[in-house]
Amino acid sequence: MRLRKIPGIGEKLVEEYGTLLVDEAKNPRGNWQNYFQNPAPVFLEIGMGRGKFISSMAKKYPEHNFIGLELRDEVIYDAAKRLGSVCSNVAILRGNAAYLENWFAPDEVQRLYLNFSDPWPKKRHAKRRLTHENFLKLYRTVLSPDGEVFFRTDVRELMEFTLVEMTNHGFSLEEVSLDFHNSIFFDGVTTEYEDRQSKKGPIYYGHFLRKK
Amino acid sequence: MRLRKIPGIGEKLVEEYGTLLVDEAKNPRGNWQNYFQNPAPVFLEIGMGRGKFISSMAKKYPEHNFIGLELRDEVIYDAAKRLGSVCSNVAILRGNAAYLENWFAPDEVQRLYLNFSDPWPKKRHAKRRLTHENFLKLYRTVLSPDGEVFFRTDVRELMEFTLVEMTNHGFSLEEVSLDFHNSIFFDGVTTEYEDRQSKKGPIYYGHFLRKK
Repeated sequence: MRLRKIPGIGEKLVEEYGTLLVDEAKNPRGNWQNYFQNPAPVFLEIGMGRGKFISSMAKKYPEHNFIGLELRDEVIYDAAKRLGSVCSNVAILRGNAAYLENWFAPDEVQRLYLNFSDPWPKKRHAKRRLTHENFLKLYRTVLSPDGEVFFRTDVRELMEFTLVEMTNHGFSLEEVSLDFHNSIFFDGVTTEYEDRQSKKGPIYYGHFLRKK
Repeated sequence: MRLRKIPGIGEKLVEEYGTLLVDEAKNPRGNWQNYFQNPAPVFLEIGMGRGKFISSMAKKYPEHNFIGLELRDEVIYDAAKRLGSVCSNVAILRGNAAYLENWFAPDEVQRLYLNFSDPWPKKRHAKRRLTHENFLKLYRTVLSPDGEVFFRTDVRELMEFTLVEMTNHGFSLEEVSLDFHNSIFFDGVTTEYEDRQSKKGPIYYGHFLRKK
């Protein structure tokens, strides 16, 4: 997603939506259920973008705890606007997936959602893909022993990469669809990007389990 | 493939192409390299149909030993016609994949090719799909420890089934393409059915390794 830098957006975000944000000062690592005051499983979306998916999920499943991780204040601001008034079971994490372990204790996350991550098409950028084995190692650490990863993309090459990478590095393939929107797995919850892309071609979907 | 029964085709086959055929009477189980008089790896196509793929492969790789397994005498006859004059490194096995162990000793096969197998779309027929875990167990037995399976299909649901089934039952995913004919893995060798189907939609491809 291309973004225009907005001067002062970080401060504006904190001012207007501070209660939604989690930052270093109030890092609930190891105590997320406490943070939510709800002993339910923690579901984390890595790269929530403008937050359409996570806000829909949080409304649809009010009994669960949702966390949206995002790096870019410009989109976090839009997500916060969307989430602020409607959901009490959502937190926004401003940060980088590479430092997941700073935010989550081992086994603390039940589900990871990876929706339309940057495909980093060049081979020399493979390590930046969110399903590269280095990231998978991190995910295994923070995921509970029966933890799950839900993956979607419209980029064929990223789907191919992800299938090979995940099944060879600590995850088993539980379900897969090569045309998600026409599959029994699709529940209608989408991202903004997905709404546009699904008109142009198939959406790919994988549901993976953490291997013991 | 729909087939018209041809009376007497079995006898005709034996008469005209007997030297190509392997049957119970001359079962080379455990001695395939002897049979071919060539100590090269044994490559087996399960369901060779009219034999276009295996004849192309045998010509392209004359140093290897190829075996085409097929159940239906009507198509075997066409395959034999195609193979008879051109390849000395091919044998035709009249038989059923379910009895693979009767034809091959443990570890005797280096590669298995599964090209456009019957998708058996109904759930109650799942056990008949050639990538059902029951078949995979057989494949593991006859494949060498570093044995491989090469799989192709144009049927999305069979590809999805195969990805889940194989990675959960003794095989690792080495390579995958969701548009084989436009991928770096495609070497131009096709089946007759593939030539027709590839004009209508993507061909799916998976390359699996036997897990230790």
